[in-house]
Amino acid sequence: MAAVPQRPIITLTTDFGLTDPYVASVKGVILSLNPEAIIVDISHAVRPQHVGQGAFLLETVHPYFPPGAIHLAVVDPGVGTERRAIALRTARGSFIGPDNGLLSTALPDDIRSRVGKAGGRVRLPEGCLGVALTNPRYHRQPVSDTFHGRDIFAPAAAHLSTDVPLSDLGDAVDEMFALPPFRAERRPDGSLSGKVIHIDVFGNLITDVRGEDLVSPRATVEIGGRQIGGVERSYAGSRGLTALVGSSGYLEIALAGGSAAAELGADIDEPVAVRS
Amino acid sequence: MAAVPQRPIITLTTDFGLTDPYVASVKGVILSLNPEAIIVDISHAVRPQHVGQGAFLLETVHPYFPPGAIHLAVVDPGVGTERRAIALRTARGSFIGPDNGLLSTALPDDIRSRVGKAGGRVRLPEGCLGVALTNPRYHRQPVSDTFHGRDIFAPAAAHLSTDVPLSDLGDAVDEMFALPPFRAERRPDGSLSGKVIHIDVFGNLITDVRGEDLVSPRATVEIGGRQIGGVERSYAGSRGLTALVGSSGYLEIALAGGSAAAELGADIDEPVAVRS
Amino acid sequence: MAAVPQRPIITLTTDFGLTDPYVASVKGVILSLNPEAIIVDISHAVRPQHVGQGAFLLETVHPYFPPGAIHLAVVDPGVGTERRAIALRTARGSFIGPDNGLLSTALPDDIRSRVGKAGGRVRLPEGCLGVALTNPRYHRQPVSDTFHGRDIFAPAAAHLSTDVPLSDLGDAVDEMFALPPFRAERRPDGSLSGKVIHIDVFGNLITDVRGEDLVSPRATVEIGGRQIGGVERSYAGSRGLTALVGSSGYLEIALAGGSAAAELGADIDEPVAVRS
Repeated sequence: MAAVPQRPIITLTTDFGLTDPYVASVKGVILSLNPEAIIVDISHAVRPQHVGQGAFLLETVHPYFPPGAIHLAVVDPGVGTERRAIALRTARGSFIGPDNGLLSTALPDDIRSRVGKAGGRVRLPEGCLGVALTNPRYHRQPVSDTFHGRDIFAPAAAHLSTDVPLSDLGDAVDEMFALPPFRAERRPDGSLSGKVIHIDVFGNLITDVRGEDLVSPRATVEIGGRQIGGVERSYAGSRGLTALVGSSGYLEIALAGGSAAAELGADIDEPVAVRS
Repeated sequence: MAAVPQRPIITLTTDFGLTDPYVASVKGVILSLNPEAIIVDISHAVRPQHVGQGAFLLETVHPYFPPGAIHLAVVDPGVGTERRAIALRTARGSFIGPDNGLLSTALPDDIRSRVGKAGGRVRLPEGCLGVALTNPRYHRQPVSDTFHGRDIFAPAAAHLSTDVPLSDLGDAVDEMFALPPFRAERRPDGSLSGKVIHIDVFGNLITDVRGEDLVSPRATVEIGGRQIGGVERSYAGSRGLTALVGSSGYLEIALAGGSAAAELGADIDEPVAVRS
Repeated sequence: MAAVPQRPIITLTTDFGLTDPYVASVKGVILSLNPEAIIVDISHAVRPQHVGQGAFLLETVHPYFPPGAIHLAVVDPGVGTERRAIALRTARGSFIGPDNGLLSTALPDDIRSRVGKAGGRVRLPEGCLGVALTNPRYHRQPVSDTFHGRDIFAPAAAHLSTDVPLSDLGDAVDEMFALPPFRAERRPDGSLSGKVIHIDVFGNLITDVRGEDLVSPRATVEIGGRQIGGVERSYAGSRGLTALVGSSGYLEIALAGGSAAAELGADIDEPVAVRS
């Protein structure tokens, strides 16, 4: 009996929302080219055109998928300009999207650490193959000026999920645009200076302070003019504003029985400081 | 080795939202009858009971799916009345839903052009087979008075996706209720008179003005008391209110870095005019 | 030719929302362990930590799925405390989640009737096998203190959907925490005293008054200081506030062309009374 080949997984991370026909168009294009693909939504609620938040969500979730998964991401304020469309293959998965930092998670932190706060171009390391999606044979024609998700990225993901080699999709690239790691800065006095990077449905503020960077559970967290003493292990039993290291390894601020975001009037990019 | 038969695709377009158990009930009924079905959400965020918007989303998205796909749509203010439930088969796919105009995209524009603004009944053209879903054998019993999506439409889609012939689902029909084409009217002075037909997650206003009807990129677009000069190729580099032909071929109004809907205070059905 | 085994269905009911990476992480973990699983969202819009609403949605939807389906539910205010994680197998499906009442639908009403309004512990009846998810071999390591959905419940569902026996997942249990049935109380004067248990996307108020408990369609429904005379068969033709028995068998309050919830200013837990 022949083994049934494992069906390929394609994940989607976009700012398209779920109200509109955009996500379904992408899925239709993928399934037209590969009906065996398993399509999984990571999120379509990235804040419109917020590349950093999209990159963070992709970084947070992709490790839970098999290494053969293909991660398609579209947060693309530069669609229609000269920004490149790229596909990357690494040992942890393949990544397809605009070359604007959204796919930074394909790179190791030490390489990303070389760019400034606004990001910058870096060379691809060994073990990370990249192509620009320049081969029109694998585009959906005619290519819209405003929806490369449907006409360039979706076909690339679908073809890659069949037996099309990465190198057929276009010209090899050896560098890409990267965002710095999601990691609060260590100040000379030993404190950490970071920011809110995502607000979840519970109103929890997820920051770029990594649990591994916390020297002590006795740390004081400062945000929105408030001080929170100590970092807890779980939400249970907490009262008022609480700081804990969340399930993705980042410090988050929660409010027992309420929304920390509403309580603090805090939004994405709100500064946070941690003092030991 | 026997070829693996392609798994059938069933798409869903409804006003059910994603908060409630309605969509999942429909999926459960489908998967109980055909576990091999691939179910794809087009949108469940059609404005409650807005048949026109649902018809537009279905028309916009279904071309990206394979022609064998089955499109199940439920925006059904008349559920529980004598309005018919129908299934249609065309060369571009099968369509299942209430006979209230929602499935108009199954018909060519020239036929839809014969009805007035409020829609009307038309004969099915050659190449479009129709049945009323009258055969109780293919209903889920007991049939609820308020949820035909679960009890009549979902079973019809599931059975159609197996080997049940269309004609078994009920009595043949040779006419249906159709909406006019989504196409702004050409006035005697050459201008186009249309309306907003959908507002997307970015706040872009999608109108029924087709790109192919624009005589010149130098056209002036009037909406909400404002004038926009010229039709752009993409969002990139635009400032303020911008008009462009979107990825579905319709004129849309966008606001760089913001929501055109909020800026204009415009809603669905807001009039729009284009003068060359 | 060997029969293709039916692919297992795993449903998800959570309060995770669709904005965040939580749902996708759960799906990634499941698909990493069983790529053949068909994952269906029931709802991720349970009000945060509202166990009762989650239990109601699961109770309402699971009957539409095949009896082999595995229902994973996570509304888990006690995550990180000593509350147990459990899996149950019944003739109508398997249920996995926290032992906090969320999985009450696995139990027959007569057993649930023995607990008070706040719920209580009951013995599992014959035909309902239960285990606590104590076997670390089937956990995702390291187990987060705040996200058992990803690290304990998802792996349990995935393993159960392959050939892992229920009993391998942990120690057998013979009792669990149950909520009382969703059923309005019959008062000595024959009236029914219930409450709103869910508000749907249309603003309809779904109550715990069962259609089978209504003595007469001439009943008077009292809610939010208003009286509604008579119970209708469908929404069609109704004007103003309307009471009808909805598609799930519960009395609901609707407003023709509007939101009953907004009209009445009513929320979940709003009292409702029915007098014959």
